[in-house]
Amino acid sequence: MFESAEIGHKLKKSEFQREEPKLRRALLDAQYALLQKGKFPVIILVNGVDGAGKGETVNLFNEWMDPRHIHTHAFGASTDAERARPEMWRFWQALPPKGRVGILFGSWYTDPILQRVMEKEGRAEFEQRLARIRDHERMLVSEGALILKLWFHLSKDAQKARLKALSEKKKTAWRVTKDDWKHFKHYDQFVRVCELALRETSTGEAPWNIIEGSNHEYRSLTAGGLLLDAMQRRLKGPAPLVTPAEPLPQPSIDRVNILNTADYTRALKGEDYDRKLEKLQGELNLLTRDRKMRGRSIVMVFEGMDAAGKGSTIRRITRAMDARFYHIVPIAAPTDEERAQPYLWRFWRHMPPHGSAVIFDRSWYGRVLVERVEKFCSEDDWLRAYHEINEFEEQLTVGGAIVAKFWLAISQAEQLKRFKERAKTPHKQFKITDEDWRNRKKWPAYESAVADMIDRTSTDIAPWHLIASNDKPWARVETLKRLVETIERAL
Amino acid sequence: MFESAEIGHKLKKSEFQREEPKLRRALLDAQYALLQKGKFPVIILVNGVDGAGKGETVNLFNEWMDPRHIHTHAFGASTDAERARPEMWRFWQALPPKGRVGILFGSWYTDPILQRVMEKEGRAEFEQRLARIRDHERMLVSEGALILKLWFHLSKDAQKARLKALSEKKKTAWRVTKDDWKHFKHYDQFVRVCELALRETSTGEAPWNIIEGSNHEYRSLTAGGLLLDAMQRRLKGPAPLVTPAEPLPQPSIDRVNILNTADYTRALKGEDYDRKLEKLQGELNLLTRDRKMRGRSIVMVFEGMDAAGKGSTIRRITRAMDARFYHIVPIAAPTDEERAQPYLWRFWRHMPPHGSAVIFDRSWYGRVLVERVEKFCSEDDWLRAYHEINEFEEQLTVGGAIVAKFWLAISQAEQLKRFKERAKTPHKQFKITDEDWRNRKKWPAYESAVADMIDRTSTDIAPWHLIASNDKPWARVETLKRLVETIERAL
Repeated sequence: MFESAEIGHKLKKSEFQREEPKLRRALLDAQYALLQKGKFPVIILVNGVDGAGKGETVNLFNEWMDPRHIHTHAFGASTDAERARPEMWRFWQALPPKGRVGILFGSWYTDPILQRVMEKEGRAEFEQRLARIRDHERMLVSEGALILKLWFHLSKDAQKARLKALSEKKKTAWRVTKDDWKHFKHYDQFVRVCELALRETSTGEAPWNIIEGSNHEYRSLTAGGLLLDAMQRRLKGPAPLVTPAEPLPQPSIDRVNILNTADYTRALKGEDYDRKLEKLQGELNLLTRDRKMRGRSIVMVFEGMDAAGKGSTIRRITRAMDARFYHIVPIAAPTDEERAQPYLWRFWRHMPPHGSAVIFDRSWYGRVLVERVEKFCSEDDWLRAYHEINEFEEQLTVGGAIVAKFWLAISQAEQLKRFKERAKTPHKQFKITDEDWRNRKKWPAYESAVADMIDRTSTDIAPWHLIASNDKPWARVETLKRLVETIERAL
Repeated sequence: MFESAEIGHKLKKSEFQREEPKLRRALLDAQYALLQKGKFPVIILVNGVDGAGKGETVNLFNEWMDPRHIHTHAFGASTDAERARPEMWRFWQALPPKGRVGILFGSWYTDPILQRVMEKEGRAEFEQRLARIRDHERMLVSEGALILKLWFHLSKDAQKARLKALSEKKKTAWRVTKDDWKHFKHYDQFVRVCELALRETSTGEAPWNIIEGSNHEYRSLTAGGLLLDAMQRRLKGPAPLVTPAEPLPQPSIDRVNILNTADYTRALKGEDYDRKLEKLQGELNLLTRDRKMRGRSIVMVFEGMDAAGKGSTIRRITRAMDARFYHIVPIAAPTDEERAQPYLWRFWRHMPPHGSAVIFDRSWYGRVLVERVEKFCSEDDWLRAYHEINEFEEQLTVGGAIVAKFWLAISQAEQLKRFKERAKTPHKQFKITDEDWRNRKKWPAYESAVADMIDRTSTDIAPWHLIASNDKPWARVETLKRLVETIERAL
């Protein structure tokens, strides 16, 4: 894989001086076109061997283009805020919005490769992480991002020669540390691991570009040329289609589904309700104060048809917790900063650190529910969303989050009853709008969407809890019970 | 000050049970009115003596209102990301947007009081911090925020009785730690310090409300009633006017000002330029890699008339630095998330951690320049901005930032020349718009605004560097020279 990056590529200085101004002008033009009409972000990943010119190239990109619209992020050791969240969180924070260029120096490849080289992780674990990266990049491309992956390489001989040359000169000796020689000892092992990483993650939509790094002129023009070509192509043509391979999900032919077969008759009355509620709230409170909670977080998701009782159920849960322990995130229309980012960005930004909880009142499932039914997104978008969401929730779980998802199910008749009640109670009128009545007409379409959602995203790590909610007391107690069980099992 | 909070206020349970549902309904109504048409955020500060019911009250607020639209932030020890930035940064991150309620548990009072009680800071320093808080709150109120400051108090006897009662019961003994008794020993000292803090910061626009904390019913209804009254008043009436006392600044009567007396003839040519530029860039590079830089950050501000050369000057600076060291923030129209926050919020969010730099291409000075001239904000807004900006920059400086501000000055004739050149050069045409020509007509108004700005915000901690920029090479070298000097002096 690295063969053609070890043949001693080089370029004459005079040639470089002739080509550089042209490249630079073209890059600047492309950057401004991106800024003015580009509906996509450019994400440049810079990885490779030490000393192969990664830093120099990043600086050159900033010099060639307008650095005001480039964000460069270097990922070193993680901060304590980062360590308390799922691994990918910090990369989500660093994504450039549409129209901008983001350079990720280090990126999501660094840690998996390092762990594997140091043999702290086995081969299977490593391949699993690479598969997750592949999915992540595929999602970014599907969301419209242009990803340019640059790998800077040096042969073992070139690396050795470089370290020697630097050590021997008085002026540059400080640049070679003990660590550099230690890394050099691991060169073969490092390259073997990298080769696997590159092979596994060189996909059609986001391939690796390997650049021999020893000659400044060759390396710089090559990297710049790749960036220019990628940007120009994308500015002219449409985004690559990452077509979901699957057929469209179909409503069950016997019209029986998980929602219309739920048992809506369950109910709970008076004292029985009070007693059970209080007991469960006490248990939940103790769990949130458990020592083990310090290394875990809770992510709760509430979905349901309009008037299913999400708000009041959430309040029975929050009353059991200290206000400092949780945040509630009601999901409404995205802000303009959120619209300039991939779909999941606006959920990632709310991920809680260990020792705390977040409650989503509606969530990322909007994509496969309202956005699907109302056609706010393309068919491709919601079709690929199931897998992306499963990936997302797996990342949360791996990062220590306990994910609990609740679908509060009511019957169509019960919804009608509640709508009418809202319409005639003065202080509840703001809760019922024309839109609610419109949505109600699409009940069958929503029902299919919910059934598909549960089929495709109820996983062992994050199962859906379907709560029959025609009777509010029963629904509240049942939700609390499932939540307490989920947390207990996880701790 | 605490006298009336030591007289043993209490309320019968029956009375509480009668009043609570009414209060709750009214609070919920007020919260929804705020959410739907409220053009202001509600900021509740919760402070006071340990055990006086702070936590209980915060939980009650979350129970009474819809917790989905309340954000509770507890401020404990700061994280490493917080310690690397100015003190107020983390509070800015926690401000609720318009329409929402934010509860700051702890808040900006906790650390100054603690430092003073522990005698780690002297009286003068303490009063200085209180003065800064006063300014900060005044700014928030001017920006439209409703601030409710709640102080929960317990008399020494009540505190002692409480700790004893808790210790004696097996079920609650764990709640009393050694630290609690240690704090109790400092009770008198603590209350003395708090009294001063409350006196100094009980202003007309943001007074303290002291609540006796020993009786649950009394405390809860009092706190809830205060919140309700504050919200209802503000929903009905206009925001309080915090009128700037000063007269309007006037243009100098002899028409001579700092801009039209600058020496625009200075110039630098060819080799001389190259040599000087390279030398200064080398110096700047070394400074950014200085060990001392790890505990400092650099905040650069570039302002100037259109076509003054901000972009190209910035690029001469960034070329001297590693791309991982700096971020550039070009200031354009605010996003909707930014519009929902106080004016300075969108600059605070970009404040760099120690060991790095941020370059603002246009900045918070927009308020006293374009917003003043184009009447995008009210007269009151820009009149109070000078002081707020000085305060802001002082906070940055105290937090370890080196603030360097540059006004790139060109003559009116030079601007015309550059406009015409842009209009006829194909790849520069996007840089010149109708708006630029319109702005140009307002040159005298802008000139006055700049003169006032320099008069009022060129301070010893953050002076303005006025750079005559008719000759670009001279301007670039001069800017770099001043920047290098500023950093050298600071390190």
